[in-house]
Amino acid sequence: MTSIDLNADLGEGFGRWRLTDDERLLSVVTSANVACGYHAGDAATMRRVCELAAERGVTIGAQVSYRDLAGFGRRAMDVPPAELTAEVAYQIGALEVFARAAGARVAYVKPHGALYNRVVHDEEQARAVIDGVLLADDTLPVLGLPGSRLLELAAKAGLTDVSEAFADRAYTDEGTLVPRGHEGAVLTDPEAVVERSVTLARSGTVTAHSGARVGVHARSLCLHGDTPGAVELARRVRERLERAGVRVESFA
Amino acid sequence: MTSIDLNADLGEGFGRWRLTDDERLLSVVTSANVACGYHAGDAATMRRVCELAAERGVTIGAQVSYRDLAGFGRRAMDVPPAELTAEVAYQIGALEVFARAAGARVAYVKPHGALYNRVVHDEEQARAVIDGVLLADDTLPVLGLPGSRLLELAAKAGLTDVSEAFADRAYTDEGTLVPRGHEGAVLTDPEAVVERSVTLARSGTVTAHSGARVGVHARSLCLHGDTPGAVELARRVRERLERAGVRVESFA
Amino acid sequence: MTSIDLNADLGEGFGRWRLTDDERLLSVVTSANVACGYHAGDAATMRRVCELAAERGVTIGAQVSYRDLAGFGRRAMDVPPAELTAEVAYQIGALEVFARAAGARVAYVKPHGALYNRVVHDEEQARAVIDGVLLADDTLPVLGLPGSRLLELAAKAGLTDVSEAFADRAYTDEGTLVPRGHEGAVLTDPEAVVERSVTLARSGTVTAHSGARVGVHARSLCLHGDTPGAVELARRVRERLERAGVRVESFA
Amino acid sequence: MTSIDLNADLGEGFGRWRLTDDERLLSVVTSANVACGYHAGDAATMRRVCELAAERGVTIGAQVSYRDLAGFGRRAMDVPPAELTAEVAYQIGALEVFARAAGARVAYVKPHGALYNRVVHDEEQARAVIDGVLLADDTLPVLGLPGSRLLELAAKAGLTDVSEAFADRAYTDEGTLVPRGHEGAVLTDPEAVVERSVTLARSGTVTAHSGARVGVHARSLCLHGDTPGAVELARRVRERLERAGVRVESFA
Repeated sequence: MTSIDLNADLGEGFGRWRLTDDERLLSVVTSANVACGYHAGDAATMRRVCELAAERGVTIGAQVSYRDLAGFGRRAMDVPPAELTAEVAYQIGALEVFARAAGARVAYVKPHGALYNRVVHDEEQARAVIDGVLLADDTLPVLGLPGSRLLELAAKAGLTDVSEAFADRAYTDEGTLVPRGHEGAVLTDPEAVVERSVTLARSGTVTAHSGARVGVHARSLCLHGDTPGAVELARRVRERLERAGVRVESFA
Repeated sequence: MTSIDLNADLGEGFGRWRLTDDERLLSVVTSANVACGYHAGDAATMRRVCELAAERGVTIGAQVSYRDLAGFGRRAMDVPPAELTAEVAYQIGALEVFARAAGARVAYVKPHGALYNRVVHDEEQARAVIDGVLLADDTLPVLGLPGSRLLELAAKAGLTDVSEAFADRAYTDEGTLVPRGHEGAVLTDPEAVVERSVTLARSGTVTAHSGARVGVHARSLCLHGDTPGAVELARRVRERLERAGVRVESFA
Repeated sequence: MTSIDLNADLGEGFGRWRLTDDERLLSVVTSANVACGYHAGDAATMRRVCELAAERGVTIGAQVSYRDLAGFGRRAMDVPPAELTAEVAYQIGALEVFARAAGARVAYVKPHGALYNRVVHDEEQARAVIDGVLLADDTLPVLGLPGSRLLELAAKAGLTDVSEAFADRAYTDEGTLVPRGHEGAVLTDPEAVVERSVTLARSGTVTAHSGARVGVHARSLCLHGDTPGAVELARRVRERLERAGVRVESFA
Repeated sequence: MTSIDLNADLGEGFGRWRLTDDERLLSVVTSANVACGYHAGDAATMRRVCELAAERGVTIGAQVSYRDLAGFGRRAMDVPPAELTAEVAYQIGALEVFARAAGARVAYVKPHGALYNRVVHDEEQARAVIDGVLLADDTLPVLGLPGSRLLELAAKAGLTDVSEAFADRAYTDEGTLVPRGHEGAVLTDPEAVVERSVTLARSGTVTAHSGARVGVHARSLCLHGDTPGAVELARRVRERLERAGVRVESFA
């Protein structure tokens, strides 16, 4: 039986501010990418999200980021490797304390925002992130884009590399994402997102922007939690996956 | 044979800024209160200090603080208990990752600056700090002022309470510190500091401001690392303690 | 003809996070307390709010705060006076650049959150805030609670002191606010808020918690912008004031 | 008579941390690049530096930076132009309040660290910085590297562009800086630095790394204030310039 993981970014508030509907999303996803304080995520929010995730059996991952609250981690930064490595480990350690207190543990790492995009191609930063993961816990899987330097280096370092796909993004004929900003880069029709999710899970393919069918290997589907209707859409994706005989479960 | 611990604040730089001569202090003290990022201490510095401490067999403690880089944690803050608890746990967890990576572990917790002073009397914040320690690791000793609410609540919660004295501070007849700002509150004569250290360690007493001899129970002596001549003074204290037959060793 | 000012906190987002519906509130209020970066308010948001306020002829005020993004400025802090003075001036100066660029100017100062509450009684901090205002621009009115040390010291320093009332808060027989947390401290019935606003504006009185009628002098009414239905309520308050023959206009 | 300006970075502490010997440097330089809070520079330090500069007749400039205290503004960041523009204006405005309170004014703008290097070639960010200057005060000169996009765009926008040279850096035959990290990129012999300063000021040339003499147009010389012996070297440069008949004075 085919299985797929559903992951989403959670705990992306800070102090007085909220962004994601953590409680409701945690009733849908199987993996929670929890913000660790560098782009979002104050300590009390991290604690609460870990408690909710643990209660519901949702796997907890550390969503590590550049240190950039003002930019929400969306501004690429030339962080020297030794600093980036330490910053990644710091975030994992901080989250681990709340995961353990909730009776769970940090079970994977996923870079956020600009760091996520940077480590697709930037070998130096990808290596620095992997070094940070190894420093913190050398048994942690790394979640990222298939074909990225990050996942390549994770595998070389003996870490489990977990690839993900995006149900709401257009793909090129090469199986890479159509860059944001390009026409049609983001799918807005809920039904199209749902169908693509099922196809991805069952056949490992997507219909590319051109209409061609291309292979996209993914053990996890990334759902967005910060858009209007996000929770409802996530729920529909999950239901349709299950109806199609796909087991929705964490990769960890 | 009498023994005493020597503790000092370390890793109190941030990014480009340095404050403490970590490398030299680590050749003198037996316990390092390592800044965890809230009043000082970037991730790379935390990593480096933990590595140096582990190499030299110095015990690593988490020096937890209010979230206040601009004020160096010296501005008392009315942080709601649930937030303070989470913030304390966050800092311990972040440091733990570097301690473990260095082959050691966080072995105690000591509040910093304004938080240290606040939890002498403030029951609510003292309890919040203890709750943060319990959340992170309920085997961690807590280092603080004898008679403080913090140590009282630590003991009640089943944690080891470790009391410390200050070799360079004047004491009242009640065995409490003469508040900073009062005349003679800080001892500036190195020889007086050295002598007081030996007396404290050997007889558990100090000569109070009034001239009376008062009992001060302390398993650890706090040395200051950020004043001119700090390292040299620390070294003299340690030598004289050892010459007087006091074993200088961590309480942990 | 009686007149009253309506003020609200605006621009209280930060980076990716939003809190207040700035655009719609600016079509109702006559004075905008704009966050200046210490408890909320990134530079781009400050610019946008100033532009919108200037377009609509809404008076711009600097909402100065403790430096505490994580706590949204709601945690009282023991900031040394010289630091607080400089921090207040810094915030006013930063906002002034956007006000001027929009063809307007910073026309008053109002402390935010915990600082607002602290300077009701704390003479040292109240004086530090006034010193910060004087440093920045000694022609700026100061908005605050009637009877507060802040307004007293503002008047003594030759600044215009502007007192405000809260339409949605219960008052004691002494004309002070029933502290939050006490039963009935916050009025939740919109019609009660609207009626109180009109009475405050027309007769300078409120019906206290006890039922007694007490005098409350206020040239401005504070409306809350961050609660559900806030904009709608603010609009009703304004309409009813105007229908009752009260001119709604800035005090500046 | 030939004249030259001497500029240095000042006020680069933060809270408890100090970096530059502001007081002594202000007795040597004619232009002070004052940190504005984004890479360094708390509000109280900014105030103090402005007061000292004003007392000594040193021209005050805003040293604007990426928002990056942890990296001291040395990590290049992909900040969207609209955000960068607002951030630049914010910093200028915040500094202006202290300059004015000291009886002076912000008289120029110089980017710091990674932003300084980025706007040599990055047209988008250079334009965003210029837009920030224009937003704050369209009469402000901009200090930077000759030939940089920043100075080109400043001139096009009608701002005064002021080019600077570095007395302690090696130059290529094209009159550009030998990149840091390359052998001989930084001159360490004080006498060589002093001689180069005089030659630069008098003839507008330097002896390049290759031995060739190349033209380098500069109205200002940048001195470093955060290295050991920095103040002494700066003093020698100034004395030798004056002895050589060069008038040392601000460009503003």
